[in-house]
Amino acid sequence: MTTLPVLGILGGGQLAQMIALAALPLGVRCHVYDPDPHAPARLCALHHCASYDDESALRAFAAAVDVITYEFENVPTDCVTTVAALRPLAPGIEALRVCQDRIYEKSFARTLGLATAPFVDLTPDVPSHDALAAVGGHAIVKTRRLGYDGKGQRRVSTLAELDAARHDFAGHALILEGFVPFSHEVSIIAARGHDGTIVRYPLIENIHHEGILRRSLAPAPVADAALETRATEIADAVLTAFGYVGVLTIECFVVPGPAGASLVINEFAPRVHNSGHWSIEGADVSQFALHVAAVCGFPLQRPTVAAAAGMLNLIGAEPLPRDIPPGVAIHRYHKAPRPGRKVGHLTAVASDRGALAQTLAQCSALVGTWHGTEE
Amino acid sequence: MTTLPVLGILGGGQLAQMIALAALPLGVRCHVYDPDPHAPARLCALHHCASYDDESALRAFAAAVDVITYEFENVPTDCVTTVAALRPLAPGIEALRVCQDRIYEKSFARTLGLATAPFVDLTPDVPSHDALAAVGGHAIVKTRRLGYDGKGQRRVSTLAELDAARHDFAGHALILEGFVPFSHEVSIIAARGHDGTIVRYPLIENIHHEGILRRSLAPAPVADAALETRATEIADAVLTAFGYVGVLTIECFVVPGPAGASLVINEFAPRVHNSGHWSIEGADVSQFALHVAAVCGFPLQRPTVAAAAGMLNLIGAEPLPRDIPPGVAIHRYHKAPRPGRKVGHLTAVASDRGALAQTLAQCSALVGTWHGTEE
Repeated sequence: MTTLPVLGILGGGQLAQMIALAALPLGVRCHVYDPDPHAPARLCALHHCASYDDESALRAFAAAVDVITYEFENVPTDCVTTVAALRPLAPGIEALRVCQDRIYEKSFARTLGLATAPFVDLTPDVPSHDALAAVGGHAIVKTRRLGYDGKGQRRVSTLAELDAARHDFAGHALILEGFVPFSHEVSIIAARGHDGTIVRYPLIENIHHEGILRRSLAPAPVADAALETRATEIADAVLTAFGYVGVLTIECFVVPGPAGASLVINEFAPRVHNSGHWSIEGADVSQFALHVAAVCGFPLQRPTVAAAAGMLNLIGAEPLPRDIPPGVAIHRYHKAPRPGRKVGHLTAVASDRGALAQTLAQCSALVGTWHGTEE
Repeated sequence: MTTLPVLGILGGGQLAQMIALAALPLGVRCHVYDPDPHAPARLCALHHCASYDDESALRAFAAAVDVITYEFENVPTDCVTTVAALRPLAPGIEALRVCQDRIYEKSFARTLGLATAPFVDLTPDVPSHDALAAVGGHAIVKTRRLGYDGKGQRRVSTLAELDAARHDFAGHALILEGFVPFSHEVSIIAARGHDGTIVRYPLIENIHHEGILRRSLAPAPVADAALETRATEIADAVLTAFGYVGVLTIECFVVPGPAGASLVINEFAPRVHNSGHWSIEGADVSQFALHVAAVCGFPLQRPTVAAAAGMLNLIGAEPLPRDIPPGVAIHRYHKAPRPGRKVGHLTAVASDRGALAQTLAQCSALVGTWHGTEE
C-alpha cells in the first residue's frame, strides 16, 4: 500500500468521529486521544483512553501516529506541548494559543486590520464603570478561556449586572465585549495546505438559540459578491499570518452600513466546525476530508458546493428513522442524549433555496416535537 | 439515544468496510466476522476474528448483534445456518443458497421467466459432445460454486478444450454455459425493505478485463427507457420471489435484437456490489446506506443520481495522493497490494457524459502507469 500517514486526533468527540470517517477512504487511519471511555470517535478510530495530563499515555499516542491534530481548541497547553515535541502538530501551537484566549484572539485580529467588537481586558483592577463605558454600555462578559456553546458568558447592560457577573465569574480571567449591532451571524470555513494553497467554502449563515448553533445555511443567503470577497480577504490574512495548516473557522457578524454590510470578527475556531457539517453532502469535498488532506500534506481540492444546503442540529434527542423526511441525511454521533447536548445533525441539499426551505421546515417540525426551545 | 440495531456482517472485506462507514452516521454500529486479522472492516467495526467453522465464536458474534447480513455469497452454509438460528438474517438463507450455485441461480431465473444463457449441468456422466452441442458450441465451463473475479472458469470451443477443462476442474461440480452474443454488460442494483418497498438505481454499465471488473458507468450509456423498464421488471420479480430484504445485484448481458436489445441474466449477487461503488458520490443515498436501511428495517430512500458517474477499480496498486485528478474521489481499502487484487477505487461525478469521459481518461492514464493490463 502507498505509505500514508497515521493521523492522531486530540479529542474523540463527534468532530473527531467525522474526521476519522472521512480519513479512512483516503487511506488515513486515525488514533484518537480522549479520557472518555464512550468517546464517539472510538467507533471508527483507535482509542487511547487516558487523561490529558497522562504524559506516558500522550507519548505512546504520539509514537503511534505520524501527524497530530485536535478537534477542540481547549486542549490543555501542557498536553499539546508534550505531543508537539514528538510529532508535527497541525494546526500549529501559535494558532491554538491565540484561539484559546478571547483577548489574544481579538488582539491578533486587530493586528491584521480586521474589525472586532470593542473590548476590555476585564482584570480585577479595571472599574466596572470605565469598562462598560469603554465598550458602549451594552456588552457581554465572557471568560477569556474555555467557553463554548454560550457557556461562560452573560449579557450585561448595567453596572449592577456587570458587578454581579464579575462576582459570579470570580476566579476566571474575563473579557468585556461591546455589543455588535449585527443583522446576521456567518462563518468562514477555509483550509490551508502545507504548500500555502488556500481553499474556502462560501459564507455560511448560522442561527443560534440560547448560545447553541441550531441551523446553518450554505451558501449564506445574506452574502453578496462583496461579502464573499471580503471573506476571502479575511481568510487569506488569518491563515497566512498563522502559517496555518488545516481547516480554520472564523465566526463573523454581518453589520449593515451605509456603504454595504461589513464583517466583524467574532471568534476563531482552529478546527472543523459545526457550521460546516453540511459540506459532507453539500460539497464534493467535506470540511473533514479537507482537514485530513491539509494536515497530511495531500493536495487541497477546491470545493464545489450545492446550490443550497442546510444543517439542523439535533440537540438533546434524536428522531426515529421513520420520521426523517425523504432526502434528508442524518448523522448520529452515538452520544447519550442530555438536554442541550448535540447528539447529531440533519442535512438537506436542494437545487434552490425555496426547495431547501420547504425541507428544512419539515425537519424543524420534527425537531419541534421533542425540542421545545428550537428557535 | 434512539435504540437502533447493532448490525453483524459475515466477512470483513472492503464491502463490509463501506457498509460500516455508511452505517455509523445512521446510528448503526457494526460487528464484522472474519478470520483474517487484517480484514479491512476492522478499522471501523468491532472485529470478531475467528474461523467460519468456529461455532462458539459464531454464537458469541450472533449474541452481540441484532441482525446479521453478509458481504459475500460464499459464506459456508453451516456458518450461516448457525447464526441464522440465533438472529434475523438478511438477505435470507434461500437467496444465499440460490446465489451460491450457478445451476440453482439459472434455474431460479428461468422459473421466473427470465432469460439466461443456455446451460448444461456438467455432471461426470454427461458426454462432452452432447453438452457442447446443447449450448451451441461456444461455451464457458465454470465451477458451480465459489467462483469470483473470473476464477474457476474457462472458455471452450472444441471438444478437446472442454475435456481438458473438465480434467483440470476435476473434483468441482461444473456448469457449461453457452456463449451469449452480448454487446454490453450491465448490472441492476436494487433494494427491498421489510415492508416490500423496492428501490433501484438506473442500469449500470460494466467493463471487465481478464474476468475482473475494471470500470462502471452510471447511468449506463447503453440503456434506454425500454431497457430501464425491463430492469425494473426483473428486479421486482427476483426480489419479490425471494421475499428479499437488502441490496441485490443482478448482472446481465445486453443482447441486441431486431425488436430492440434485451437483458439476459448472467448472475445474482445477494449483496452490495463493486459496480455500485459510484453511488457513494454519485447518488444521494449509496448502495451501502440502502443496504443498512433495508436490513435494519428503516424506510428506503429512492435514490436520486448524478447525470453521469464513473468508477474505476484500483487493482494491484494505488496512486499517490498528488496524482489523483482534481474532483476525483479515492477510496482506499487498506489492503496490501498484490497483482490482481482490488485495493481501492476512484469515482468521478460529472454533469454530462462528455465531462465524465474526460475525467475518466485522466484516471485511466494514471492507472496505466502502474497497471499495464488495464483495458
